[in-house]
Amino acid sequence: MPSWVDGHPAESLSIKDRGLAYGDGLFETIAVRAGRPPLLEYHLARLAEGCRRLGIALDLALMRTELLAFSAGLGEGVAKLMITRGEGLRGYAPPPVALPRRILQSSAFPAYPEANAEQGVRLFPCATRLAEQPLLAGLKHLNRLEQVLARAEWQGGEFAEGLMRDQSGRVIEAVFSNLFLVRDGGLVTPDLSRCGVAGVMRAALLGSARAQGIEVDVRDVSYGELLQADEVFLCNSLFGIWPVRSVTEQNWPVGPLTRKLQAIARDLLDI
Amino acid sequence: MPSWVDGHPAESLSIKDRGLAYGDGLFETIAVRAGRPPLLEYHLARLAEGCRRLGIALDLALMRTELLAFSAGLGEGVAKLMITRGEGLRGYAPPPVALPRRILQSSAFPAYPEANAEQGVRLFPCATRLAEQPLLAGLKHLNRLEQVLARAEWQGGEFAEGLMRDQSGRVIEAVFSNLFLVRDGGLVTPDLSRCGVAGVMRAALLGSARAQGIEVDVRDVSYGELLQADEVFLCNSLFGIWPVRSVTEQNWPVGPLTRKLQAIARDLLDI
Repeated sequence: MPSWVDGHPAESLSIKDRGLAYGDGLFETIAVRAGRPPLLEYHLARLAEGCRRLGIALDLALMRTELLAFSAGLGEGVAKLMITRGEGLRGYAPPPVALPRRILQSSAFPAYPEANAEQGVRLFPCATRLAEQPLLAGLKHLNRLEQVLARAEWQGGEFAEGLMRDQSGRVIEAVFSNLFLVRDGGLVTPDLSRCGVAGVMRAALLGSARAQGIEVDVRDVSYGELLQADEVFLCNSLFGIWPVRSVTEQNWPVGPLTRKLQAIARDLLDI
Repeated sequence: MPSWVDGHPAESLSIKDRGLAYGDGLFETIAVRAGRPPLLEYHLARLAEGCRRLGIALDLALMRTELLAFSAGLGEGVAKLMITRGEGLRGYAPPPVALPRRILQSSAFPAYPEANAEQGVRLFPCATRLAEQPLLAGLKHLNRLEQVLARAEWQGGEFAEGLMRDQSGRVIEAVFSNLFLVRDGGLVTPDLSRCGVAGVMRAALLGSARAQGIEVDVRDVSYGELLQADEVFLCNSLFGIWPVRSVTEQNWPVGPLTRKLQAIARDLLDI
């Protein structure tokens, strides 16, 4: 599937684009199954919120139509959408009339080992700490150097993901997924109002869990609390749920609530 | 002057570039006078440090040659250099063999009012606070959403620049320049080990001031200390030095040390 820029096949972008100059934009990584994106409404909602907070005037109706058309052409795989503020004059000031740019790229589903979902994964304890910036927290924006540095901390297959904490040591997320704890039969996931990316699978699972009467707590999580959790799992919109088997000295079995939510995540992703 | 990508005329870039996807790169804004960049060594030194810290394998000898050739072609104006890690596979992990990309764009010198340098400027007090991230502090990297948000806080010509503080309220810099205080005949400039961009004009002025026997202190600066300063000025590699005339309730005359350093900055910039 060729890439699209503003709805037309293209593989390149002007070097004047503010997405390149300043990371002035947002992105979404969208699973596509049988020609449609199962989590479309969640992706569009997050995109709308990001555009509102960054002041990017994206046409969301056009975006929906375009994502549906791109997904239909792709069939099976991953659609990566980048939204930038468009081309700019010199300097940081957003241009008075900016035309946001829509970039769509496709790829195959990443070939994760099946064992990740079956037996769980080991979490690498990243030394890179997330900076606290409430104005950008939760958004999937294009300023991702912290994730690049964190992901470069380990190589090889021993660790499937890395644990990221904030500058104060609180547990926030993993490098490319969100993190949940199970405690006394309820779910706990870190508050993302200071840093972190609020994933669409996280949002979908929070909704599904509440609908099923599972208690859900979104709040600060200390490292000590993580280690004492009954179950730990990761989620994102491509792999669904991976149980966490270990982080440094602590080990967990794959627990019953993790398995139950894993089935829900598969349903959400049409797997 | 046409733009160059990797030494060849080009106006576009692959949408697979990690500079766009993650802001995975660095930039320099370089004044060019009579076909040469007067602060070249400072720009190259900062670039080398940035590449070292981000793990980007840039050929610095080639970069120097290319900057000199581009400057010769440009004559007078601004050369903006962006370095990205190059194209990547899917995901945050830096590719095992990445080919850094060099992007050069030219523009005319910005048309700042002469009054900025003569009578000084008013500083807008930005509400956007800088996040504290020691791993990226000081670098002129491509993750610049904080500056975009801060610069969007004011419009019009009343304020030429904006004051940026960190999450703890310390004074750090302005949106596109560095900040100095004069106190008891010596210079004070904020420590940039938690956040902020270490400008090349800041580095050059620190060296010149020390060489002239002016006392220089690089350390944390509170907002209260800023307001009590004898003189305040901004610097960057395009405009040299702008005296600061006011920030909120506080006003300053243009002081003697500011004028002395302004002359030094003009010499450094071959103005």
